[in-house]
Amino acid sequence: MCNLRHMPEKSSTRDRMIAATARLLQRQGMAATGLADVLEASAAPRGSLYHHFPRGKDQLAAEAIRLSSARITRAIEAAMTGAPSLPAAIHAFAAFYESTLAASDFRDGCPVATTALEAAALGATEVEAACAEAFAAWQGPIASRLAADGHPPARAAELATLIIAALEGGLLLARAGRSVGPLATVASQLADLLSATIVSPSATLPTQ
Amino acid sequence: MCNLRHMPEKSSTRDRMIAATARLLQRQGMAATGLADVLEASAAPRGSLYHHFPRGKDQLAAEAIRLSSARITRAIEAAMTGAPSLPAAIHAFAAFYESTLAASDFRDGCPVATTALEAAALGATEVEAACAEAFAAWQGPIASRLAADGHPPARAAELATLIIAALEGGLLLARAGRSVGPLATVASQLADLLSATIVSPSATLPTQ
Repeated sequence: MCNLRHMPEKSSTRDRMIAATARLLQRQGMAATGLADVLEASAAPRGSLYHHFPRGKDQLAAEAIRLSSARITRAIEAAMTGAPSLPAAIHAFAAFYESTLAASDFRDGCPVATTALEAAALGATEVEAACAEAFAAWQGPIASRLAADGHPPARAAELATLIIAALEGGLLLARAGRSVGPLATVASQLADLLSATIVSPSATLPTQ
Repeated sequence: MCNLRHMPEKSSTRDRMIAATARLLQRQGMAATGLADVLEASAAPRGSLYHHFPRGKDQLAAEAIRLSSARITRAIEAAMTGAPSLPAAIHAFAAFYESTLAASDFRDGCPVATTALEAAALGATEVEAACAEAFAAWQGPIASRLAADGHPPARAAELATLIIAALEGGLLLARAGRSVGPLATVASQLADLLSATIVSPSATLPTQ
């Protein structure tokens, strides 16, 4: 926005604000997160918001969602490329979130879900688009792994949607019930069902 | 709380407040819903809140979640008992929510999810418990159908957890992306995978 934007200190304040917002959105969502909370958590001076984020809270929240999205993408990529099989990768990624849940007394879950649901009520906004992009991006490494295992690309993409949706739902049930149980159950049942289709990826299963 | 509680008019105000809160929670969650919104939407007089809900907003929200939970339980029961197969029942229940999404321009989804995620940040409360009870209750009719189809009870319960989680995640992705596509994909892929296990429910599938 101005010729100061490449100064290290300014850049650092901006990054701190985004990181603090990402943590607040993961824990409590957007509606409960005020700008005063962000300024306090990032030790940013008043006036920083519109200097660094001229489109205001929506832009700041969207940047925070993008930061969290990239972090989760890396975790999914690590699980998908590091595990010996897709079921093992699903268990590894679920274990990553089980640690997050346990370490935060179930206050931290998916860094995008709460904000995505809240934003949906407000109609199309920059933050809603960032949430949709996050969910889409996370499916990429899973679809790649499924394709590498022999699934046709279209089927791989649809199974990746199911896997992300099921794990998101598992996180939701785990947070609500204050237990990692539902997330572990989802990962286990999903892995079992997928094992059958991975054994014969070209098989066409009847719907009914 | 008092000897007036059986008077029709009082009861009606209380019911209107719960119904209005249920609608507001479904659309925008708890953090964005103020008591003034509830009073306005239910045409309730000031002072109604603590007269009818002595434990305040938490009690009102919990009652609203219970009302929504019962409504969704009935929809799941109708799908599970009315469809010729579990995959068909999953498609029927997904279609119920696809209508909700489309009719509200993606503003209305699961009536519990947003509140459940927001409440998780606040620690154990009456509303968090009501959300956990809702998710547990919804699994009942699905597990019953799976058991009727020949699955052992423990496996039926775990598959029911996966099915609710996957549909919740599908709703989340659908709202974020403003498209019923992800929910339809989740239902379709889940139905396909389950068809395989329903064909031979006693088969034990390897995890890896």
